Amino acid sequence: MAKLKWGMIGGGEGSQIGPAHRLGAGLDGAFEFAAGALDHRPDAGIDYGRRMGLGDRAYGSWQDMLEGERAREDRVDLVTVATPNATHFEITKSFLESGFHVLCEKPMTMTVEEGEEIVKIAAATGNICAVNYGYSGYSLVRHMKAMVARGDIGKVRLVKAEFAHGHHADAADADNPRVRWRYDPAQAGVSAQFADCGIHAMHMASFVCGQEVTRLSADTVSCIDVRVLEDDAMVNFRMEGGAVGRLWTSSIALGRQHGLTLQVFGETGGLRWAQEHPNQLYHMPLNGRLQVIERGEGNLSPEADRTSRVTVGHAEGMPLAFANIYSDLAEAIRAQKEGRPMDPAANLYPRAEDGLRSMAAVYAVAASGKQDGAWLDARPPIFR
Amino acid sequence: MAKLKWGMIGGGEGSQIGPAHRLGAGLDGAFEFAAGALDHRPDAGIDYGRRMGLGDRAYGSWQDMLEGERAREDRVDLVTVATPNATHFEITKSFLESGFHVLCEKPMTMTVEEGEEIVKIAAATGNICAVNYGYSGYSLVRHMKAMVARGDIGKVRLVKAEFAHGHHADAADADNPRVRWRYDPAQAGVSAQFADCGIHAMHMASFVCGQEVTRLSADTVSCIDVRVLEDDAMVNFRMEGGAVGRLWTSSIALGRQHGLTLQVFGETGGLRWAQEHPNQLYHMPLNGRLQVIERGEGNLSPEADRTSRVTVGHAEGMPLAFANIYSDLAEAIRAQKEGRPMDPAANLYPRAEDGLRSMAAVYAVAASGKQDGAWLDARPPIFR
Amino acid sequence: MAKLKWGMIGGGEGSQIGPAHRLGAGLDGAFEFAAGALDHRPDAGIDYGRRMGLGDRAYGSWQDMLEGERAREDRVDLVTVATPNATHFEITKSFLESGFHVLCEKPMTMTVEEGEEIVKIAAATGNICAVNYGYSGYSLVRHMKAMVARGDIGKVRLVKAEFAHGHHADAADADNPRVRWRYDPAQAGVSAQFADCGIHAMHMASFVCGQEVTRLSADTVSCIDVRVLEDDAMVNFRMEGGAVGRLWTSSIALGRQHGLTLQVFGETGGLRWAQEHPNQLYHMPLNGRLQVIERGEGNLSPEADRTSRVTVGHAEGMPLAFANIYSDLAEAIRAQKEGRPMDPAANLYPRAEDGLRSMAAVYAVAASGKQDGAWLDARPPIFR
Amino acid sequence: MAKLKWGMIGGGEGSQIGPAHRLGAGLDGAFEFAAGALDHRPDAGIDYGRRMGLGDRAYGSWQDMLEGERAREDRVDLVTVATPNATHFEITKSFLESGFHVLCEKPMTMTVEEGEEIVKIAAATGNICAVNYGYSGYSLVRHMKAMVARGDIGKVRLVKAEFAHGHHADAADADNPRVRWRYDPAQAGVSAQFADCGIHAMHMASFVCGQEVTRLSADTVSCIDVRVLEDDAMVNFRMEGGAVGRLWTSSIALGRQHGLTLQVFGETGGLRWAQEHPNQLYHMPLNGRLQVIERGEGNLSPEADRTSRVTVGHAEGMPLAFANIYSDLAEAIRAQKEGRPMDPAANLYPRAEDGLRSMAAVYAVAASGKQDGAWLDARPPIFR
Repeated sequence: MAKLKWGMIGGGEGSQIGPAHRLGAGLDGAFEFAAGALDHRPDAGIDYGRRMGLGDRAYGSWQDMLEGERAREDRVDLVTVATPNATHFEITKSFLESGFHVLCEKPMTMTVEEGEEIVKIAAATGNICAVNYGYSGYSLVRHMKAMVARGDIGKVRLVKAEFAHGHHADAADADNPRVRWRYDPAQAGVSAQFADCGIHAMHMASFVCGQEVTRLSADTVSCIDVRVLEDDAMVNFRMEGGAVGRLWTSSIALGRQHGLTLQVFGETGGLRWAQEHPNQLYHMPLNGRLQVIERGEGNLSPEADRTSRVTVGHAEGMPLAFANIYSDLAEAIRAQKEGRPMDPAANLYPRAEDGLRSMAAVYAVAASGKQDGAWLDARPPIFR
Repeated sequence: MAKLKWGMIGGGEGSQIGPAHRLGAGLDGAFEFAAGALDHRPDAGIDYGRRMGLGDRAYGSWQDMLEGERAREDRVDLVTVATPNATHFEITKSFLESGFHVLCEKPMTMTVEEGEEIVKIAAATGNICAVNYGYSGYSLVRHMKAMVARGDIGKVRLVKAEFAHGHHADAADADNPRVRWRYDPAQAGVSAQFADCGIHAMHMASFVCGQEVTRLSADTVSCIDVRVLEDDAMVNFRMEGGAVGRLWTSSIALGRQHGLTLQVFGETGGLRWAQEHPNQLYHMPLNGRLQVIERGEGNLSPEADRTSRVTVGHAEGMPLAFANIYSDLAEAIRAQKEGRPMDPAANLYPRAEDGLRSMAAVYAVAASGKQDGAWLDARPPIFR
Repeated sequence: MAKLKWGMIGGGEGSQIGPAHRLGAGLDGAFEFAAGALDHRPDAGIDYGRRMGLGDRAYGSWQDMLEGERAREDRVDLVTVATPNATHFEITKSFLESGFHVLCEKPMTMTVEEGEEIVKIAAATGNICAVNYGYSGYSLVRHMKAMVARGDIGKVRLVKAEFAHGHHADAADADNPRVRWRYDPAQAGVSAQFADCGIHAMHMASFVCGQEVTRLSADTVSCIDVRVLEDDAMVNFRMEGGAVGRLWTSSIALGRQHGLTLQVFGETGGLRWAQEHPNQLYHMPLNGRLQVIERGEGNLSPEADRTSRVTVGHAEGMPLAFANIYSDLAEAIRAQKEGRPMDPAANLYPRAEDGLRSMAAVYAVAASGKQDGAWLDARPPIFR
Repeated sequence: MAKLKWGMIGGGEGSQIGPAHRLGAGLDGAFEFAAGALDHRPDAGIDYGRRMGLGDRAYGSWQDMLEGERAREDRVDLVTVATPNATHFEITKSFLESGFHVLCEKPMTMTVEEGEEIVKIAAATGNICAVNYGYSGYSLVRHMKAMVARGDIGKVRLVKAEFAHGHHADAADADNPRVRWRYDPAQAGVSAQFADCGIHAMHMASFVCGQEVTRLSADTVSCIDVRVLEDDAMVNFRMEGGAVGRLWTSSIALGRQHGLTLQVFGETGGLRWAQEHPNQLYHMPLNGRLQVIERGEGNLSPEADRTSRVTVGHAEGMPLAFANIYSDLAEAIRAQKEGRPMDPAANLYPRAEDGLRSMAAVYAVAASGKQDGAWLDARPPIFR
């Protein structure tokens, strides 16, 4: 099976996200790193790309890359957009319109309107537009979704999500440029911690429950005075299937490293998962005993089996979750090329609609936070 | 040191709370079980009391006990009220007015007005009126309070409290009388799960932070349809010292057994404690590493040392936390008898003011829950 | 039900073990603290005993107490011996011979021969001689035993026990008298860490498996040079029912607080329990999933139900385990008084035979350790 | 930087180890999968290799591959040997002698003599011969080694290692060919569980402590009757620097999934790490408090930083540990090509000497197990 060709925009030398994507895309051997515009400084990007083995497909700008790749027969099959947030919309839009499949880092856009436009373009062109809610790639997150879908815990009553860390808790560090921009509306938009982290937890809640968020009420606070945007938020929400949601996100929670957790409580069972120990899933059947489901154990779901790479008991971590998103996309692209339906167990990558819904939720959280927690519609207008 | 004499109202044969109080009161040998009106059925109460060794101080009703004990020279030093909730006010009031010290089970009263009356009577008579927020007796909860008070984590920014269990998650069990009354306003008042469990977490948050709750906003839901009162609630609050609070309580959280947890995040550190494993306290200093504080280790605080009974590494559990409340009260009573100031490390038992504040919070939660989460004053009128 | 009368020898002011016994004996109200010879200094013992409310039953020596109590009609029903190790034998023997029931702290004796003598006296007199392997009182340890006995994990193949702590790891502290005597053969006998801690783990292994240890091989080491006796030992053993045993004990294991753990692996399941979190028991059924058994949950065993005092999810700790031993003894004494068979679920207290077997194991470990791990008979001669 | 070329022998379609190696080798983009003899059936191997994109470098046998690659200018830089155990020696020897660098799966050989021969050939040719003790690639295992080396816990007194699982506990499954061969001396050699799993733990103990094992005593048992070789073993050992070792390995430990753990106790601190949660390392300083070291946190060691790929709090798993071995090898090969010293933080891959020492330990364990735990020299003759 020939490798698919993959290109990247952003993710230059020294970036954190670049290696993570290259690792994820390369992990299964499905994608070959073939082209890139890796830096906003043309020379640096070309130089780094060449050192990465891209040859003349190391471009100086995304515009050059768009032009260059469009002209080739062996154009890249998938473009990953990992540039600063404010540029995601324009680049994603341009590549989609030129016939490329795109995986866009989150946030997909800066506004709901832009999000709606991307959704429409993706639909109109038939090109894949995925958004990197990468934590949804964990094997046991997939299995939670499968368990909920097949009724293992009955109708979902309540979902409890958290994404709390303490890495921005130092007031003395608040002026550090690496941190400060996140809390500055001029650079970060309407929300800081919810948009940065909380939205991953909300996506995961929707993903696992198979229900979209309809309404929400938020309590947002800035625990460090100089911050305009929130560093801690509590969001209550309701979902279309009737489930109640509660989501806490914080960047001042000293002692939490990467507290992305999900608890789902249904009529006949409860589930609990935590990203820091992602290879165990706790299942409490009604009137039963707490059980520990291990990633990689036999007889889970097709969704779990497909995304599990090493045998039970061996930890798998975040890079493999990431890789699972790429694996989904490889299957989606191949299926499209071959004119066949794709493996349903792979058809789980987050898509433009998720990017759009997230943006609507971010705006709703920001607005509710300013209105004493007023309950607001969390849906993008085109989905109401 | 002669033992103090102790009496109990309620807690008859087969009750859960009776043995817990007797165990707590007797644990250190400070109190001798001397009198009781243990059952609302006079004969049963007298019979059981006699079998417990109370002799002619086994009474048929609390009124008889009040009269009988008042007439004795060796009257009981402390009366515990562990009767059904609706009777707490009248009994507590009567004993306080007759010169007895009282430990009342929570809730102290059914209304804020009653609570205010008890506070005034306790103040006027000089008698001790304690309320049994027994989880505040854990040695490491005491130590958390001491750490916050001495500035180990700086000014508190945020407190995150939970009290979640799954023991009322079975819809088929909702009509079981043992469960049903809790969700019936006619019997339980304005709130179910918050008043039953959440209030413990809120008391603990106030206790540890040394700050009272001023305002709150609640999202209350009944996940099981037949219930009028809430079985799940999320409460956001603010405290007088500026701390933000977030409190979740649930009785449908399958997989949680007794999820009473507290996280406190300050300017220079974070703390985390969980009732299910109460002998460890996690401390994250700013820019440091997570550390595990063990109950019973050397060089903690006077408050921790006083309430630690066995050597480090040996688990202590809930009954000893309970006993610590009794130990506080023994010291308070002795100090009063001896006309000396009490040991400040013992002066930590919850009191009538806490009972009153809790009642005000319960009403505020219920009201906010009905008003789409409106922010309401959580303080009792006399403390505003 | 009239209280039983209880007396104590040793456990004077400032001792650690005294309060633990008084707490355990008093917890359920079955025993009344009635007599004591609490200190080897007669005046101090009488003074402390009087302050504890013993009146003229506060004795200056165990000999006085033996004489005084023997002369009374209301003599104590049970005597606890908590004196220095070397005196256990003489005191226990004397009281047994005079018709008292005895609970002796471990070690019951200093030699195997003495142990055999105690066993014979107890048998001849019909008096109860219990030995305080108190950790066997934990509710879930009792439940483990019940599960093994009823075949829940099939025939036991292997048992893995540990008792490791790091409280004697400081070389600078090795000369501290509080620590030094434990490693000095003149004061401690033939073994230090195994006799002090390891033997608890070995008793628990036997208790839970229902099999006695027959042969053993030990590797004993002194990690701190000045110590003559071992501060770390690994013991392999075999049990009469065919189970293989592996036991590690250490006092230099920095990071372990009180690492008493037991794992039992059978043909159809595995069990795991740890004293530091004693309210959970992990059960792995063959070809199943790891399950968490909670102390206090419904439908466990009579042995577990009897020893569980607070509702599920509330931690119970070591003092209650201790109390369960006293509770067993109260039932044993009452049954004997009333001439009826005792409750089989209470008939689980460790007895003189256990004390004897332990002493034989201690000698075997010490001898094997000196003989390069030679396999030696671990049984006392009279049980071979 | 041009990619290194990598070839593989074994690891054909459906094998477990093949994908793990390809994933590890490809992860950082240092190696390009260029050649392979993937199956002992020539046609199947060629076919699968071609489908993997190897073209005419998909060979039908390792002999063909040796000949084919030797003839090329762009011959592979590294050959991984992942064939059945009995063939490792011959293949590794042949490739080393022909000038290739080799990474051999463990066991490197079936006998000590063969191991000595490999060591000599590697030394004589100057070619790299690595052995895949892949768990030593975990970032925090590297950090443990660095901490020990720089004296953070003082002189090591004792090391406690475990590798226990329960995947061969089902007696009904003992005849399953997938399981049976492991316990059959004709196929597996002199040892089953120790050679398969325990040796990883022993290597890790040596690796972390920086000390080789000198003497050992083993208790080996077959818990399932039909097995000739051991399914459970306890090994006590001594190390050249004076440290005491205790190692338990089991395949019948129901409830353990992949219990590879290491505890190291030194004069001034203790360390604890478990493969199932590999992103945390517990450090207990003497007279201090237990601290949690997180993979990826700042200011660890160069060895940890080099092997950490994603930010703190995001789990990394086994495949990345594996990849770290390949990363070491890439650096070693490049340094050799460029005639420069290699990065010392990468100079940690297990090598032929480790493979040889392991084989000597396996034989010593097997022999000691048959001699009632006699203490035997664990060193290969050429290292005595």
